[in-house]
Amino acid sequence: MFTHSLETLRRRRSAKWRTYPADVVPMGVAEMDCTLAPPITAALRAAVDAADTGYSAAQPDLGEAFAGFAARRWGWRVEPAAVTAVTDVGVGVVELLRMLVRPADTVAFSPPVYPPFFDWAPEAGARIREVPLTAEFRLDLPALEAAFAAHPAVYLLCNPHNPVGRVHTHDELAALVRLARLYGVTIISDEIHAPLVLPGAQFTPLLSVPGAAEVAVSVVSASKAFNLAGLKCAAIVTGGTALAAVVDRLPRDVRWRTGHLGVLATVAAYTEGDAWLDALLTELDARRTELGEQLRTRLPKIKWIPPEATYLAWLDCRALGEDDEPRELFLARSRVGLEPGTRFGARGAGFVRLNFGTSAAILDEATARMASAAGR
Amino acid sequence: MFTHSLETLRRRRSAKWRTYPADVVPMGVAEMDCTLAPPITAALRAAVDAADTGYSAAQPDLGEAFAGFAARRWGWRVEPAAVTAVTDVGVGVVELLRMLVRPADTVAFSPPVYPPFFDWAPEAGARIREVPLTAEFRLDLPALEAAFAAHPAVYLLCNPHNPVGRVHTHDELAALVRLARLYGVTIISDEIHAPLVLPGAQFTPLLSVPGAAEVAVSVVSASKAFNLAGLKCAAIVTGGTALAAVVDRLPRDVRWRTGHLGVLATVAAYTEGDAWLDALLTELDARRTELGEQLRTRLPKIKWIPPEATYLAWLDCRALGEDDEPRELFLARSRVGLEPGTRFGARGAGFVRLNFGTSAAILDEATARMASAAGR
Repeated sequence: MFTHSLETLRRRRSAKWRTYPADVVPMGVAEMDCTLAPPITAALRAAVDAADTGYSAAQPDLGEAFAGFAARRWGWRVEPAAVTAVTDVGVGVVELLRMLVRPADTVAFSPPVYPPFFDWAPEAGARIREVPLTAEFRLDLPALEAAFAAHPAVYLLCNPHNPVGRVHTHDELAALVRLARLYGVTIISDEIHAPLVLPGAQFTPLLSVPGAAEVAVSVVSASKAFNLAGLKCAAIVTGGTALAAVVDRLPRDVRWRTGHLGVLATVAAYTEGDAWLDALLTELDARRTELGEQLRTRLPKIKWIPPEATYLAWLDCRALGEDDEPRELFLARSRVGLEPGTRFGARGAGFVRLNFGTSAAILDEATARMASAAGR
Repeated sequence: MFTHSLETLRRRRSAKWRTYPADVVPMGVAEMDCTLAPPITAALRAAVDAADTGYSAAQPDLGEAFAGFAARRWGWRVEPAAVTAVTDVGVGVVELLRMLVRPADTVAFSPPVYPPFFDWAPEAGARIREVPLTAEFRLDLPALEAAFAAHPAVYLLCNPHNPVGRVHTHDELAALVRLARLYGVTIISDEIHAPLVLPGAQFTPLLSVPGAAEVAVSVVSASKAFNLAGLKCAAIVTGGTALAAVVDRLPRDVRWRTGHLGVLATVAAYTEGDAWLDALLTELDARRTELGEQLRTRLPKIKWIPPEATYLAWLDCRALGEDDEPRELFLARSRVGLEPGTRFGARGAGFVRLNFGTSAAILDEATARMASAAGR
């Protein structure tokens, strides 16, 4: 599935391929360099040929497709009617926050984390409370209890956690749910990376944790695992009546803002995409191993904890002895485009995020370039 | 371009074809039954084949494409950098309103009008002031002056006006701009139907009116004219620094919520779509004539003012002697799906909106059915 050369990929017009000039190997923006799963290609071609490009009509197809996928992949029972289409995960989170927070309310989350987390709370009119991950990139449960005791309106969970690739365990999530119930905090769980849990880890959907459904709501999408970020389809999923009532209060137009081709591609992904996804996970597992070996031999000063999920690697470059933003070093000296660590919070200083959702050849090229930059 | 049969169209999965059971002829939801313009089909097929489905990167292509289209079609000079991609016109309007209104502020607009106008102001936290069109479906300038004297924050213009198909004249818009400047009201102009001005009328972009750029901002899209509503691409266009500064303050993530395939299709439409669009307008002009003849002979009690733009007809069914919602009559008795008039405001009681963006055969079928319902 990672069959495209750099030359072919540079013809793409998506953000990953438009961010840098052509001499840069882009390893930043979280798109993969894969081909599409064949059922998705077929669904999109059929829609284009039929000029089926009008307003999306997500239900009941999207809910049924996601419920089937969640049951097969994770044993999670989802009511199809509890699945509500939204433009993307960010829109789902922001619209939920608008319903859940009042002015001066606080939204807590755990950096280093996906940069828009820092934007979504202010967009919904809330303040931010940072509760950093531990040094091993795990949820810091004592710190979370201290934060929850100050009654933030919402805790925004990233599960699995971008950029560190941590898959929170069932026990950790159960403890988090206990705290949320104890202190009256609603959890919004961003589970966009859930289908990308790699061999060796096991994904726990937050809403499958006993007691979670009354205090939590999840936002899911096929967009990361099947590379459909530009097609604008995600979904809010609830498991209990209180949060379902919140979703029912969302502005009526929110549902109409979902991409129709996104819905069609997502339904194809969730219903017919398992074999392709399994093959992808095997590929990404291999890429993770290759990256580890390349870091060891070529860039020994870089430290990392191999991710349990996602195609993203969070690289600790502080021992390179450069300044706080090693991304600039790799871009200027070796023409490799990485995500700067400080975008993920102040504790990201000295880190970069590398996207290994690509071919072995392109990953090899990128780390070879990085080694030449770091070695000077 | 209207070559598809009802049987083929029923295989579409968009909202128009999912709203009713298969025995209903759907003439409601504003999607057309056309095939796609060949340059759009080519752009979409190329993107699907290249798996070019990542995040959108709208600029500079979208701005340059729209500027070219606006110059060729309307002689309107647009700065490509003054074009900002958004998910759809509704998102563009709501995000602008969030910047422009404070709690307790009022947003004025002129019903009967596109139903989401009634939702967008409350979504942005504003109250509504209705300033109805005149009986001839023109802007009521004296009533607008009285309303503007109460200092609404924003007047939301629909230009051309859905559902009545009125193309506001240059003189009317110049008078509106004078009032806006006099009373300090910002105008947001929804120009989604602009490319669909039919023979006999001339579209005036609001921002092309002298003095407008300092007080007005437009939201445009190729989605109506090229039938791309599900691809989620529209654009905010400014002509002056004050409103450009408002756009600059929009949340950073807004730009990332645009559909990538929507951008690609829109660029194709704006750069290579003129010939197809001209042919479409000829077809819609014919359909308008056919509808007029069918109303005269089959449904003589229905009154209408033939639209100057759009594929939408606003039909006054009050003389049928039915209740306030004739849509129910036509749906129940003759299985034709129309938009109920009251969705466009209280003054829509007794009206329906009919979508004639279809083939002569399907329009004929629909009005024949309607005649049989009305005749009982």
